Amino acid sequence: MSLLDFFRPSPSKRNASVAKERLQIIVAHQRGNNRVDYLPLLQRELLEVISKYVKVDKNQVKVALERDGDCSVLELNITLPEAVLKEAEAAQG
Amino acid sequence: MSLLDFFRPSPSKRNASVAKERLQIIVAHQRGNNRVDYLPLLQRELLEVISKYVKVDKNQVKVALERDGDCSVLELNITLPEAVLKEAEAAQG
Repeated sequence: MSLLDFFRPSPSKRNASVAKERLQIIVAHQRGNNRVDYLPLLQRELLEVISKYVKVDKNQVKVALERDGDCSVLELNITLPEAVLKEAEAAQG
Repeated sequence: MSLLDFFRPSPSKRNASVAKERLQIIVAHQRGNNRVDYLPLLQRELLEVISKYVKVDKNQVKVALERDGDCSVLELNITLPEAVLKEAEAAQG
């Protein structure tokens, strides 16, 4: 199983919502000593960077922070509304 | 299998390199029309954001961009040298 499989919906899901656009950002930090945990701070800055390229509705952002032993994972799941995508395409010509 | 399992090394690997610190950033954009492909542009900006929190040696950054159908995945794999981590810890007190 490749990493791509994680982000690609199953064939049945694709048929059900073919126009659904998703953006996922994952930051994983694996270390022996977990003292430096900046992932929650990073979340806002990552969204600022993404917002330069696509219009992000903050109500459509789901944030999850998982910790397991020495591994911390920040996951941002963003649903992009179709109308916003069309604007982005128009802006690009 | 959870997403965390992707980033967590297997027990044997952990024993082999317990001091190895890794940072992974993954951005996945799944969409029907793949015209707006800003992921390569995003790469530099993501590294700038990360560099505010940890010192990143640009020689220790591996970048992969995968495309499969309507799914584009940008993957940054960063190895953090032990000395840099110690500095970051010292800065945090």
